[in-house]
Amino acid sequence: MIRMTRLIPFLLTGLVMAMAADLPSRKYLNLAAIKTMVAAAEQEAQKRNLQVTICIVDDSGNLLFLQKADGAGLNTLQFAQRKARYAAMYGRPSKAAADQLKGGDLGVLAYPDAFPNQGGVPIKVDGKTIGAIACSGAKSEEDEAISQVAVDALLK
Amino acid sequence: MIRMTRLIPFLLTGLVMAMAADLPSRKYLNLAAIKTMVAAAEQEAQKRNLQVTICIVDDSGNLLFLQKADGAGLNTLQFAQRKARYAAMYGRPSKAAADQLKGGDLGVLAYPDAFPNQGGVPIKVDGKTIGAIACSGAKSEEDEAISQVAVDALLK
Amino acid sequence: MIRMTRLIPFLLTGLVMAMAADLPSRKYLNLAAIKTMVAAAEQEAQKRNLQVTICIVDDSGNLLFLQKADGAGLNTLQFAQRKARYAAMYGRPSKAAADQLKGGDLGVLAYPDAFPNQGGVPIKVDGKTIGAIACSGAKSEEDEAISQVAVDALLK
Amino acid sequence: MIRMTRLIPFLLTGLVMAMAADLPSRKYLNLAAIKTMVAAAEQEAQKRNLQVTICIVDDSGNLLFLQKADGAGLNTLQFAQRKARYAAMYGRPSKAAADQLKGGDLGVLAYPDAFPNQGGVPIKVDGKTIGAIACSGAKSEEDEAISQVAVDALLK
Repeated sequence: MIRMTRLIPFLLTGLVMAMAADLPSRKYLNLAAIKTMVAAAEQEAQKRNLQVTICIVDDSGNLLFLQKADGAGLNTLQFAQRKARYAAMYGRPSKAAADQLKGGDLGVLAYPDAFPNQGGVPIKVDGKTIGAIACSGAKSEEDEAISQVAVDALLK
Repeated sequence: MIRMTRLIPFLLTGLVMAMAADLPSRKYLNLAAIKTMVAAAEQEAQKRNLQVTICIVDDSGNLLFLQKADGAGLNTLQFAQRKARYAAMYGRPSKAAADQLKGGDLGVLAYPDAFPNQGGVPIKVDGKTIGAIACSGAKSEEDEAISQVAVDALLK
Repeated sequence: MIRMTRLIPFLLTGLVMAMAADLPSRKYLNLAAIKTMVAAAEQEAQKRNLQVTICIVDDSGNLLFLQKADGAGLNTLQFAQRKARYAAMYGRPSKAAADQLKGGDLGVLAYPDAFPNQGGVPIKVDGKTIGAIACSGAKSEEDEAISQVAVDALLK
Repeated sequence: MIRMTRLIPFLLTGLVMAMAADLPSRKYLNLAAIKTMVAAAEQEAQKRNLQVTICIVDDSGNLLFLQKADGAGLNTLQFAQRKARYAAMYGRPSKAAADQLKGGDLGVLAYPDAFPNQGGVPIKVDGKTIGAIACSGAKSEEDEAISQVAVDALLK
């Protein structure tokens, strides 16, 4: 039997009216913040004598910044973007997807925006993901280390 | 040479003539049914203190309803839609695809509309799938439990 | 001749250092705001005796809410999403794209996320687009009128 | 019957042997050149009080650099990339495609990588396209003017 009338009043009762003044707000990455991170990443890469593509996205995975280093291969363009996108959409380092796959969870190959390669890290403020940064071109651990230095330069 | 003229009369003879009055009918999800399910899912999520994106599709996988909870990540938008679509197209919970993959059946990664992640359940009336609902944002077992509560609210 | 060394010092000098505390913030649509808009749109559609699919997206075009009315065709699912996405990405009503096309600007057919059909309107707070709403299923002017009533219910 | 063995010796004879030392070379954009152009574009945009997304691609249209200005809409991300890609692949300003379309050549809507919007310009050295730069966010003429200033800073 299909009963549907009983629950509708509950739905209406539960409705919370909201006005513009009540809208919540959240921080977002501006260009000054991006330049701070890029400068830190460039410096760290230089210190390590590495050449990496640097990519920064917003909380929806939109591309805010990308810069290919001379010595970074063309494949790094997609790697950096995919790692950053994963970190933004899932709110965790892209290493998590790499670990899942190593652990035998093949679902990672099918999940939307999943990318099983270390190097992307989320940028979190007050527990909320406001974007992500990823590097690509060096060993994955080094890619991630450089990304993390960039995040720390902004947040610490 | 291939003779095909001989077979055409036979084909016509074999045709069963049908009129509109004889057409079969099937139940389908209307907005009242959808609101019943959504209200039940919202209530169950609240009881469990979880934030999930809720998605309801018809028997063809067409999107009839989607609602993102504030605390649900943006990746839940695709997860909920894919899980619901699988359940509708395959007529079984998306957990079946997750189990297949865990069991070593990699075909799941290639089958159309297959999505190996628990949380979507078909809505069946008289043994026929009329749509599906999926939740995403909590643990997969919880996503499915909330979806099931919503189906039960409609059908039991 | 290629001169590149001369401008690099300028770039570094122009670098503004930013810390997390300096990050700007912006309002965003939460579920309470969405329910306010949906309730207003449903009420307006009922008043006009129309059946429309309602779609609400965030500032990046991510789908936050979708609801198909019983009498709305399946084509409205894509129309509503595309109109809302245009309004969010371009920060103006999707009528603008329709007008451009009517005026002979065929570029609209090639521009990313452009959709030349009235009915989607941006949701702007303090001059910034925080999302968009679109209706589909009635005449385009009516679709837009319902969308506008929903925005007004939130912002006025 | 088709005799092909007879032609193979001829084919081999016709081969011109080449060694690495004989390979031609072409100039390409390195990061120092990119930073020169970006600094010039930023300076020009600031002078004009405009906020634009800047995008630089190589001769194959590969993304070498992208930077979104705070005030540039999210639609500029795709516009800038598409305009730069057109300019690189076709070796002419994206205004050419816009003019073609205005002139009634609808083929522009179908040609690969064609994008009918002013603002992207090729970077040519010794008559060869080595990449392209595009801006997006202001009026198309202004987008192009800023792009041109960036190219001039590198080449003049």
